[in-house]
Amino acid sequence: MATVSLIGAGPGEPELMTRKAWRILGEADVVLYDALIDAEGMKEAAPDARWISVGKRAGRPAPEQAFICRTLVAYARRGLRVLRLKGGDPSLFGRLAEELEACRAAGLDVEVVPGVTSACAAAADLQASLTLRGVARSVVFLTPRLGRGEQEPCDDHWLQAALTADTAVLYMAGKRADQVCRKLIEAGRPALTPLCVVENAGGTGLRLQTTLMEVARYGLPPMQGPVSLLLGDAFADVRLAQNTEPLNVLEG
Amino acid sequence: MATVSLIGAGPGEPELMTRKAWRILGEADVVLYDALIDAEGMKEAAPDARWISVGKRAGRPAPEQAFICRTLVAYARRGLRVLRLKGGDPSLFGRLAEELEACRAAGLDVEVVPGVTSACAAAADLQASLTLRGVARSVVFLTPRLGRGEQEPCDDHWLQAALTADTAVLYMAGKRADQVCRKLIEAGRPALTPLCVVENAGGTGLRLQTTLMEVARYGLPPMQGPVSLLLGDAFADVRLAQNTEPLNVLEG
Repeated sequence: MATVSLIGAGPGEPELMTRKAWRILGEADVVLYDALIDAEGMKEAAPDARWISVGKRAGRPAPEQAFICRTLVAYARRGLRVLRLKGGDPSLFGRLAEELEACRAAGLDVEVVPGVTSACAAAADLQASLTLRGVARSVVFLTPRLGRGEQEPCDDHWLQAALTADTAVLYMAGKRADQVCRKLIEAGRPALTPLCVVENAGGTGLRLQTTLMEVARYGLPPMQGPVSLLLGDAFADVRLAQNTEPLNVLEG
Repeated sequence: MATVSLIGAGPGEPELMTRKAWRILGEADVVLYDALIDAEGMKEAAPDARWISVGKRAGRPAPEQAFICRTLVAYARRGLRVLRLKGGDPSLFGRLAEELEACRAAGLDVEVVPGVTSACAAAADLQASLTLRGVARSVVFLTPRLGRGEQEPCDDHWLQAALTADTAVLYMAGKRADQVCRKLIEAGRPALTPLCVVENAGGTGLRLQTTLMEVARYGLPPMQGPVSLLLGDAFADVRLAQNTEPLNVLEG
């Protein structure tokens, strides 16, 4: 049995975590969890474990990644069964490599459990498919990087990937969505490319159907939760179900 | 409550299905499932439901998609609670749109439940991250299409997406992996690009660490289950854990 389990907890809603993760949770002595994890909704499975938040909270700085790695290792070395609950899937934008490396360097047995990534949860919320026969055969997941005069090489590298894939899902792009959409249009993605916006994928939040052009012009309304942007012709026929807002909230 | 639930069952291993999917399974009157679903491992949750395989089996033709859609609708119209268990996540290469459309046209309430896609399960098997700080910020999932003189427009369109994303995961690419890798090299992806091969992601099967060049030259050993190809510099340091084979099986 592994000592440390690095687990994808899914997009936030506890029910979207796998049965395997729930089972392992029942074995935990210590649980380190990200800010977007609904720990209260999961504690039933490990009421006696020590639950430690290691995520970024509004207004408070996040623990350094190195601190998280040290904490993981320190508990595991005491012989405790340590779970690391990471939002979404751990292999996507999850700093998995750093935590794996720390465990290996300490000689700990480690396992990785995949989870539902927010792009898939967002597509399910929209009742839309990321791939579509004759329309979309490739899907890219990425985090846009906007130049800020930092020493960031290949600043527009993400743009090429967003242009060549039929469908693109942008993670962590809610804050500067207008700039991101302008970049995409300038780089050649058509201005009327269908764009869907999903706040709190897998849970409750805003769902918008719009276009690159409109978000480039008006930006997004204020949102609390994490935001996924899904763009491409696969979303031309999305029919927003309940729990969605009409486009004109952008103007409200 | 929805009448029809279109559910991502994950990559095959029943434990990698979400708790939500397990709960809904308990409500099912009829379950339509793909070939790669481990129905035997799931029947405990719905022992009295009618379980119907609608997947392709070795040597037997798959039911037409239109037949699956008609069957879904026919059972739901009788007032039965119908589950459609789809391998992986339904929004990725899952023909989700056709089934949604059929349900909507019939006026049925439908819900979509996301699942763990095989790329994420494969990464977990390899204990590798699809994204990597400073190395990989974009990940594309695609199915390669090799020209065969059919009337397929944009035949090499998938190649561009596979070239520009830092990490590429190729679904359903096991059969002609040598040709796929040759295409990628010809198009400009470096011949020594790290490539991992995962059979039966999330379950047991072959795991190989190799390069584009090597597979282009020697192909892959015979495999039974579905195969994921994962390529990019994010896999340069993969350390194959138990249940993996040394590269030289390619020459065996």
